[in-house]
Amino acid sequence: MSPTDFAEIRELLRNLPAADEAARAAARARQRVLTKPEGALGRLEELAAWLAAWQGREPPRLERVTALVFAANHGVAARGVSAFPAEVTAQMVANFEAGGAAINQLARLAGAELQVHALTLTQPTADFTAAPAMEIGECMEAFARGFAALPEPCDLLLLGEMGIANTTAAAAIAAALFGGGVREWVGPGTGLDGAGLARKAEVVAAGLERHRAALGEPLEVLRRLGGREIAALAGALLAARLRPLPVLLDGYVVGSAAAILYALEPTALDHAEAAHLSAEPAHRALLRRLGKVPILDLGMRLGEASGAALAALVLRAALATHTGMASFAEAGVAARKDT
Amino acid sequence: MSPTDFAEIRELLRNLPAADEAARAAARARQRVLTKPEGALGRLEELAAWLAAWQGREPPRLERVTALVFAANHGVAARGVSAFPAEVTAQMVANFEAGGAAINQLARLAGAELQVHALTLTQPTADFTAAPAMEIGECMEAFARGFAALPEPCDLLLLGEMGIANTTAAAAIAAALFGGGVREWVGPGTGLDGAGLARKAEVVAAGLERHRAALGEPLEVLRRLGGREIAALAGALLAARLRPLPVLLDGYVVGSAAAILYALEPTALDHAEAAHLSAEPAHRALLRRLGKVPILDLGMRLGEASGAALAALVLRAALATHTGMASFAEAGVAARKDT
Repeated sequence: MSPTDFAEIRELLRNLPAADEAARAAARARQRVLTKPEGALGRLEELAAWLAAWQGREPPRLERVTALVFAANHGVAARGVSAFPAEVTAQMVANFEAGGAAINQLARLAGAELQVHALTLTQPTADFTAAPAMEIGECMEAFARGFAALPEPCDLLLLGEMGIANTTAAAAIAAALFGGGVREWVGPGTGLDGAGLARKAEVVAAGLERHRAALGEPLEVLRRLGGREIAALAGALLAARLRPLPVLLDGYVVGSAAAILYALEPTALDHAEAAHLSAEPAHRALLRRLGKVPILDLGMRLGEASGAALAALVLRAALATHTGMASFAEAGVAARKDT
Repeated sequence: MSPTDFAEIRELLRNLPAADEAARAAARARQRVLTKPEGALGRLEELAAWLAAWQGREPPRLERVTALVFAANHGVAARGVSAFPAEVTAQMVANFEAGGAAINQLARLAGAELQVHALTLTQPTADFTAAPAMEIGECMEAFARGFAALPEPCDLLLLGEMGIANTTAAAAIAAALFGGGVREWVGPGTGLDGAGLARKAEVVAAGLERHRAALGEPLEVLRRLGGREIAALAGALLAARLRPLPVLLDGYVVGSAAAILYALEPTALDHAEAAHLSAEPAHRALLRRLGKVPILDLGMRLGEASGAALAALVLRAALATHTGMASFAEAGVAARKDT
């Protein structure tokens, strides 16, 4: 059952399941006997053990990988904070459905099923400089949409988004949750120039000023400064944490959704890894606050779960070595001289 | 025809073909109309254009990807510079042939054919602290073996190696070519402890001292301090440069082979990208000297072309987006507001 109000979300966050430490330990034990120097596969070994811990089985598997992409429109887009017009959100959703976007190609390559959820695109959220972006009901409806979107079965969830102006919402959320100067959290998004960037910073500052009294409560930050796709991402992320199920977080906007849960309960992201360090400059600081080290750093800044799909390839490599390699004993390879 | 002496290698390096700049420009032109903000796929876009330039066609393709792994034994292994005994080289070659090593799993995942070349494993090179590692004939035979190993056709070459004690040879080569302190170039390899690391540094220093008078000539550096797999890697890398054909360089040892060619002719590596930043600490400095930015940084330190195979997955992602995405016009997506 999806939560129906903020109190129910908070209640769910007080009862999070633990990772399966026995599965993690079993994965680590297997890695020590595989034909390689101990730890020589680096992050791949950590990721295989993480999959085991959050799937609750050793070996883990990646038979069902799902990419959830949530799309929404933002009232604040009318303030000139994006290099692209707002109608591009719906046009890109059509492109996802026709198979022509980057995520279509990357999901296919990564063996992930793509599910796109367009969230009331014809009705943008309110301009957050003038009013809360969402009513409580709107916010909870979007949250519940994400919460209920998890497929069953699912071995790994990739989370992504599309929404013109949503890096403005993400910057406002990050600034509200973590403080610091607005300029620290605002970046070019899809490609703003210097004047656009200054305007975007002013818009974020105005939003923070407008809602300042309510920003001590992370769910109010989400409702007032976020958007439907960000609420849905938070919902999907919480649902995955409760099952539990490992998640790859895409870029800056997904990171802002994760930050809402993190601000409510820091262990809420223990099942999640950061897939890729966005070229959006503030993503680095955001991930540092969330305690996440990105798997990839390829200078991408597209969203759509594109970074998550790429990192899913790394997880496939982690699993392939974890399950496919011979042990020293099986291969007749000598161990270290000092062991 | 493979070169038969050092003079022929130098002659080949004076006649290197250029990249196909028309193919690169055509790839860049295509990227500008695909349904994404310009440059939003970051390194993926650069890599697709690089493939086009060095394959000489737009779009490029990745139908035939080959991983070449060269294995050899080193006399210097007897000096206690590795955590593993020298017989592991042959045992790991058997493991490659049986399909039980990391590279077997990673090559399969990356759609690469694995070809392993074991180079006279029963006869290690000489201990370089006492004599040149190789006679000129031995060195040229190994170089020619690599030079002739390129399959035809081949769309992308992955280069890797296996050889107990070969990070000692790589460190000696790097120190000879680039100077600086020996400790800057020596690392734990497969997992040396502090005492082992000190011994390894002493061995490298002794090798440099023994051959100091000859180290102004990069091919003498290769012959005196290198090994058969390093010579073969240099040969394969040169053959790929002449065809030309794009190459992914694996870790520190492959980097040392690349450094030999670079020292002879800096444009000799223009067809090569660094796949992965090794956890072997000196790899970072080596890549900086070669002007290469690694595609991945996953804390691996295994060799075997494992990092190259992982980066081949990134190239597949680059190609999938490059060739599979719709254009703005095809998808009916609006362009930037200011263009």
